[in-house]
Amino acid sequence: MNFLEERILKDGIVKEGNVLKVDSFLNHQMDIALFDEIGKEFKRRFAGKNINKILTIEASGIGIACVAAQHFHVPVVFAKKAKSINLEGEMYVAEVESFTHKCKNQVIVAQKFLSAKDHVLIIDDFLANGCALQGLIQLVQSAEAAVEGIGIVIEKGFQSGGRMIRNLGYQLESLAIVDSMDAEKGTIVFREQGNE
Amino acid sequence: MNFLEERILKDGIVKEGNVLKVDSFLNHQMDIALFDEIGKEFKRRFAGKNINKILTIEASGIGIACVAAQHFHVPVVFAKKAKSINLEGEMYVAEVESFTHKCKNQVIVAQKFLSAKDHVLIIDDFLANGCALQGLIQLVQSAEAAVEGIGIVIEKGFQSGGRMIRNLGYQLESLAIVDSMDAEKGTIVFREQGNE
Repeated sequence: MNFLEERILKDGIVKEGNVLKVDSFLNHQMDIALFDEIGKEFKRRFAGKNINKILTIEASGIGIACVAAQHFHVPVVFAKKAKSINLEGEMYVAEVESFTHKCKNQVIVAQKFLSAKDHVLIIDDFLANGCALQGLIQLVQSAEAAVEGIGIVIEKGFQSGGRMIRNLGYQLESLAIVDSMDAEKGTIVFREQGNE
Repeated sequence: MNFLEERILKDGIVKEGNVLKVDSFLNHQMDIALFDEIGKEFKRRFAGKNINKILTIEASGIGIACVAAQHFHVPVVFAKKAKSINLEGEMYVAEVESFTHKCKNQVIVAQKFLSAKDHVLIIDDFLANGCALQGLIQLVQSAEAAVEGIGIVIEKGFQSGGRMIRNLGYQLESLAIVDSMDAEKGTIVFREQGNE
């Protein structure tokens, strides 16, 4: 069991409907020392990859991506979920369905911040059905940039996103993969991963 | 002139309508090494303050707050702008008017992450009319926590937010205060600050 799985067991709360609440350390209150460990582990898993930019999506991906970026010495770009009057000029746009908010969003990134020269590591906090992640991949492809890898903090292994993205050939690294949860018993089963 | 003012002159773009675009390094693409300098400077300006938590607001405050938090060794909580089904339980709520999006928002923080024991440093990227900041202060007050200070990256000194917040007695530190801008000439005038 790795540091993140231990933390999830300690502070995560399993709720009905396959909801895993980690808002005390990951996506509302944020434990920055933990984020630094997460960044170090992403660096280890993507060692040797030629990465010059990290792409994430607002809001809860940003903190993790920024702290992780210190281990890669690269800038972070975050995709925005709604059109802003300050986001002018040419933009890449992808459609994304949000499980949490039960609505469709556009994800947007300014074209000047993604180009064919970029080798991108995508980072996000959660992977479930993979809709947000597909949107981010689409943004990178629109720029003709390369997806060098995808780093996820927690993957819901019982949803289809991870399998789908791996089947597409991407190096997807999820630091914790939840294979099942039981809200009544409060138990969480993690998938064994070979590279720990 | 400090490191941030130099960077704004180098990479910031002045647009009509008193818009300062810093999206190449601050609030869309993010220069993490610069964020680390910003964090160091906040630590210097709030040296001696008893701070156990940083509060920011999604989305563009999060990255700065997380990197800055490494200099304070405290967790970060970010206020959310819209109600999410994953944000259950008791919440503090404040009303905020957004200049950028020309609409009213609620800002929300879960009550369990702000309490009367907390000594809070508020961090955000921009201060203009101060509406977002007032919302954050209101959240801290609702929790009966203490606002130990407010760290802003760029203040638009020609708008009323900064004066209003300082008049309320808060230690407000803006690393760059823009007193005027000229879109046609592309010039930016910064306010001289004594503590540099």
